[in-house]
Amino acid sequence: MRRALALAVTPGVPLGPNPRVGCVLLAPDGTTVAEGFHRGAGGPHAEVEALREAGDAARGTTAVVTLEPCNHTGRTGPCSEALVAAGVRRVVFAQTDTNPVAVGGAARLRGAGIEVESGLLAEDAQAVNRTWTFALEHGRPFVTWKFATTLDGRSAAADGTSRWVSSRAARLDTHRLRGLCDTMLVGTSTVEVDDPELTVRDEVDEPVVHQPLRAVMGLRDLAPDRRILNDRAETVHLRTRDPREALDTLFARDRQHVFLEGGPTLARAFLTAGLVDEAVAYVAPMLLGAGSSAVADLGITTIADAVHLHVADVHVLQGHDGEDTNVRLTMTPQTTPHRRP
Amino acid sequence: MRRALALAVTPGVPLGPNPRVGCVLLAPDGTTVAEGFHRGAGGPHAEVEALREAGDAARGTTAVVTLEPCNHTGRTGPCSEALVAAGVRRVVFAQTDTNPVAVGGAARLRGAGIEVESGLLAEDAQAVNRTWTFALEHGRPFVTWKFATTLDGRSAAADGTSRWVSSRAARLDTHRLRGLCDTMLVGTSTVEVDDPELTVRDEVDEPVVHQPLRAVMGLRDLAPDRRILNDRAETVHLRTRDPREALDTLFARDRQHVFLEGGPTLARAFLTAGLVDEAVAYVAPMLLGAGSSAVADLGITTIADAVHLHVADVHVLQGHDGEDTNVRLTMTPQTTPHRRP
Ligand SMILES: NC(=O)c1ccc[n+]([C@@H]2O[C@H](COP(=O)([O-])OP(=O)(O)OC[C@H]3O[C@@H](n4cnc5c(N)ncnc54)[C@H](OP(=O)(O)O)[C@@H]3O)[C@@H](O)[C@H]2O)c1
Ligand SMILES: NC(=O)c1ccc[n+]([C@@H]2O[C@H](COP(=O)([O-])OP(=O)(O)OC[C@H]3O[C@@H](n4cnc5c(N)ncnc54)[C@H](OP(=O)(O)O)[C@@H]3O)[C@@H](O)[C@H]2O)c1
Repeated sequence: MRRALALAVTPGVPLGPNPRVGCVLLAPDGTTVAEGFHRGAGGPHAEVEALREAGDAARGTTAVVTLEPCNHTGRTGPCSEALVAAGVRRVVFAQTDTNPVAVGGAARLRGAGIEVESGLLAEDAQAVNRTWTFALEHGRPFVTWKFATTLDGRSAAADGTSRWVSSRAARLDTHRLRGLCDTMLVGTSTVEVDDPELTVRDEVDEPVVHQPLRAVMGLRDLAPDRRILNDRAETVHLRTRDPREALDTLFARDRQHVFLEGGPTLARAFLTAGLVDEAVAYVAPMLLGAGSSAVADLGITTIADAVHLHVADVHVLQGHDGEDTNVRLTMTPQTTPHRRP
Repeated sequence: MRRALALAVTPGVPLGPNPRVGCVLLAPDGTTVAEGFHRGAGGPHAEVEALREAGDAARGTTAVVTLEPCNHTGRTGPCSEALVAAGVRRVVFAQTDTNPVAVGGAARLRGAGIEVESGLLAEDAQAVNRTWTFALEHGRPFVTWKFATTLDGRSAAADGTSRWVSSRAARLDTHRLRGLCDTMLVGTSTVEVDDPELTVRDEVDEPVVHQPLRAVMGLRDLAPDRRILNDRAETVHLRTRDPREALDTLFARDRQHVFLEGGPTLARAFLTAGLVDEAVAYVAPMLLGAGSSAVADLGITTIADAVHLHVADVHVLQGHDGEDTNVRLTMTPQTTPHRRP
């Protein structure tokens, strides 16, 4: 199974919209007969790839798969059927597939007399497809909210200048995180004021295979000269102010991971709706003393009502050549009630 | 010399106002004849302690000292004279003593025909007395500015409530830092509004031997019922608004390390006067969206004028039992000009 998990995350395999899956066919003596992994939407599923490689040698093998073999005819036929047809004797899988269109693979295999075992390293398999699993469970994309702030909570100086609050290392890191999402979301004002292109820059380590979808939320029209409308990536304008409605629309388009990049108004809307699943803050060791706030007024008037976040990770982005060292905090909402210290 | 440095920082030796000094007397064959360290103002100097222990055996030894032997008659006679009188053959010291009243020890020793070597592990010796060395060089105390802030730069909610922005671990850490200073400084408003006792609590690991001086700065009278005026420590009211004047007064009282604890107005005065030598920020993973700012308006209107700090250390103060994890940033002013990233 460890080998199958490693195959699933073969470099170059996109994070979405399909889950990343790996498969190993083992002979009764434990030797590997064939391997396969899913290369993303449109390509064959991992099991089918392995079966093709094995040919007749698939007969009598044990198929070790990171995800329950599917039971639906999509761009490829159902994997459960293919496994039965190839004469596989036993199937061991990690994560159960609860996707309504794919569900039922294990039952179908058992019905055909194949021995089925499930749950082996299931947590590791879920981690491989963290946002895919989340989206499936919650019926909406996972939302990562990213913001940059000075130590005194400012995102721009009093005259509106904000280049640059974040260090170069922090901006590169942001591009890396963008590349892990399938959608970037901003409000109409950010498009109006900052005119960001909102693409993943090639400065990052690996070449950008697939640009995430660019989404703008808000009722106003976008000026046609905005860079977000250029042809470097797809763009969608969500003409709503309802975060849940926006996420529903994106989910219907197979989106599983939204990177919410601002501004403060949009962030507040998602925060107050309880629709932020992860927050990433880049803290710059700067003081401005005045200027616009990194986070909009949340309507909180007393300390007991403060939004507490759980710190999952603290990472220091070292500055070089006189550049600021930034600190990245990765946080999740407090699931257990905050205890007054 | 490493042994002498270890002696200098023997647990229990206060950080000020005197420098911490260690001394080892070595026989010509390298064996240790005697050791000594300075136990703080009023006690014998390290060399004198070692010479007393050695008695006649001091004759012909090499004295290894972390600080240049003094040349002044204070509460104890000059150490250089004592070393000469004891018949020490050679003196090796680390840090040169530039204290005007003590200066000249090496010259006096050489004048008496003693072989003198200096500079060995001088940087380590300076680090042992970081703020003493700083105060001597600059003619004023070293200033550590501490502040607590939410991730969005707030120190209190809109209704003024601020208990607790910092976690318990952060507050304990603050008490530890207070204990490393000889003076704690706040403005009259903080005394008025928060009524802090401003002592080092016994919750910290080691028993509090000596409470730092409590200093209040500002022109207004203090109400006699304020806790800062209780008898748990000494208190001084500096009736000025000039940070340099306040530091001069404290320096004249042998103070070498001021812990500036607020509020924002006082912090701004020290920041804009260039009199913050170290900044310690406790960042709480909380969002308030509104409320009073952790840092007062600094008169900065454009991003290019932002105060950039150099991050020396980032420390995660893990929260337990549902308590927030706080992040401590220790920073120094940018000495080299900030490079635009
Ligand atoms: N520090 C950071 O990390 C960061 C990141 C991004 C941007 N920024 C800064 O933020 C500034 C823009 O701030 P902003 O908050 O005005 O921009 P924003 O959040 O991007 O856009 C706000 C607009 O979005 C629309 N909208 C969509 N859903 C909404 C809802 N639920 N409630 C209210 N409005 C909704 C509204 O426009 P309609 O009238 O069209 O509906 C609203 O005016 C820029 O100056 C940018 O520099 C900072
Ligand atoms: N986040 C934190 O870490 C932190 C720490 C401490 C306090 N606080 C909060 O800060 C609030 C108090 O803020 P604050 O800024 O008003 O208090 P402050 O800085 O403690 O006191 C300000 C007062 O100090 C005097 N002062 C001395 N030197 C001055 C100078 N150079 N310029 C101007 N005034 C000078 C003035 O009073 P005179 O008229 O007497 O001269 C002035 O009103 C409290 O609510 C407290 O909770 C926060």
